[in-house]
Amino acid sequence: MIDRLCIVGVGLMGGSLALALRREHHVGEIVGTSRDEENLARAVELGVIDRYELDPGKAADGTDMVVLAVPLGAMETVCCSLRGSLSPETILTDVGSAKAWVVEAVDRAFGGIPENFVPGHPIAGTEKSRVEAAFADLYYRHRVILTPLENTTVRALGGVREMWEGTGAIVEETTVEHHDEVLAATSHLPHMLAFTLVDGLARLGDHEDVFRYAAGGFRDFTRIASSDPVMWRDICLGNRKALTRMIGYFREELDRVNAAIEAGDGQTLKDIFTRAKAARDSFHIG
Amino acid sequence: MIDRLCIVGVGLMGGSLALALRREHHVGEIVGTSRDEENLARAVELGVIDRYELDPGKAADGTDMVVLAVPLGAMETVCCSLRGSLSPETILTDVGSAKAWVVEAVDRAFGGIPENFVPGHPIAGTEKSRVEAAFADLYYRHRVILTPLENTTVRALGGVREMWEGTGAIVEETTVEHHDEVLAATSHLPHMLAFTLVDGLARLGDHEDVFRYAAGGFRDFTRIASSDPVMWRDICLGNRKALTRMIGYFREELDRVNAAIEAGDGQTLKDIFTRAKAARDSFHIG
Repeated sequence: MIDRLCIVGVGLMGGSLALALRREHHVGEIVGTSRDEENLARAVELGVIDRYELDPGKAADGTDMVVLAVPLGAMETVCCSLRGSLSPETILTDVGSAKAWVVEAVDRAFGGIPENFVPGHPIAGTEKSRVEAAFADLYYRHRVILTPLENTTVRALGGVREMWEGTGAIVEETTVEHHDEVLAATSHLPHMLAFTLVDGLARLGDHEDVFRYAAGGFRDFTRIASSDPVMWRDICLGNRKALTRMIGYFREELDRVNAAIEAGDGQTLKDIFTRAKAARDSFHIG
Repeated sequence: MIDRLCIVGVGLMGGSLALALRREHHVGEIVGTSRDEENLARAVELGVIDRYELDPGKAADGTDMVVLAVPLGAMETVCCSLRGSLSPETILTDVGSAKAWVVEAVDRAFGGIPENFVPGHPIAGTEKSRVEAAFADLYYRHRVILTPLENTTVRALGGVREMWEGTGAIVEETTVEHHDEVLAATSHLPHMLAFTLVDGLARLGDHEDVFRYAAGGFRDFTRIASSDPVMWRDICLGNRKALTRMIGYFREELDRVNAAIEAGDGQTLKDIFTRAKAARDSFHIG
């Protein structure tokens, strides 16, 4: 049970966390903060948060847990404005998609990593990003990856774990580096492919026919290209090394496929597609 | 109204066509044929076809319309076994995803293009491919692209159009070349990206974590990697030129994205993602 929770950035992620904790009675008061007062007022109206403050320091004051749910590019600025407002008991966590980036931002902002800071990343989301899109089941049965650091306290880690378990999420722990590698593969690379494909096709001469002739497979494949551009710019910059490495790996694989098509090598193509189908069919992600 | 219809290859595509025409009372008798007797017996059991013949020539005998719904690689063989069995009135059409390939196969098999042949391609499908997956609404409000040739008769074109309109599909006409270019962009390239990604990730060292940490976006993005490997091998070989050209175009675009990430060029990334989101949000494909 969290008596008072501060959510910095009340969009899809922060708002859904608030709704889930509230529904399960795992939280007392929820204070929101962000740069966008209209958004905060809407969040109060929707019953997502109880009240808001425009100053993150004031919002965090007297709270047990502060959750950073802003785009990666805003993490450092937000942390700077929290400096001096967190009591020694206040636990700090985040939902950022690139953990090394957040850890560095926190380190710079606070002049060292606070021992109550637990980097976290719920593997959930939709292509929508505003508080109107928030819903209490966003995290239900989804994984939340925590990447505790050497000086993270057991109390802080336990508190963040308990919060996420309160939403119905499955909590796991790994290292910052491993998280960033795996997310580059399963999330950041696919988003790059979808954005690149849709932008590339939109700039073709006959793009109207292209989109008119598109079917369900294309719709599903490109859904993630509707994601928030600023958020994804930040993720690219925040996980640059692992992401460019994965893009390089993908390019080599694509070159092999292309070479097989050019050579009319049906056996190689069938082998690749068969392995891919077997792997895809064995995911337990629905 | 088609008095007697022959469907060659009673899988998802052929089976769904049968179910739709039957439901709308646009067909009298439906005769199925394929190399797989078990599948044909199942299709009779499911009420998809009325009866079957293992010999395509016998199945086509006395029918008004013959629909080729086999993988591209089987088109020529099937057409060879139809030679001599089609009456001058029988209309021949197909559902293949690469039109130039089918036209060449028909040309070779019949020693010239029959004037009653209308190449067609319904832009519909799922990642499933067997008759059990067939459903009457597969084509409803989906586009069917017909690519009539110089010697195609108006009667044949009208008959095929009427058949597809009977399923609730929206029928359009274009050239073989334009069809193959556009499909390379919207269907064949995305399938290559999905197959390549899933196979590449499955061969990574820590692929269990990779798939375990995958979320809804990845699930949608990779759904098409569950498609039938043989069908897709055939499509790659059947639309080789247009597809390798599109892969080359995509690679250049991906290189630009990668260069921007490496250079930390947030503005270029944001521009690309913003254009992609705007294009994706404006599709009217749901």
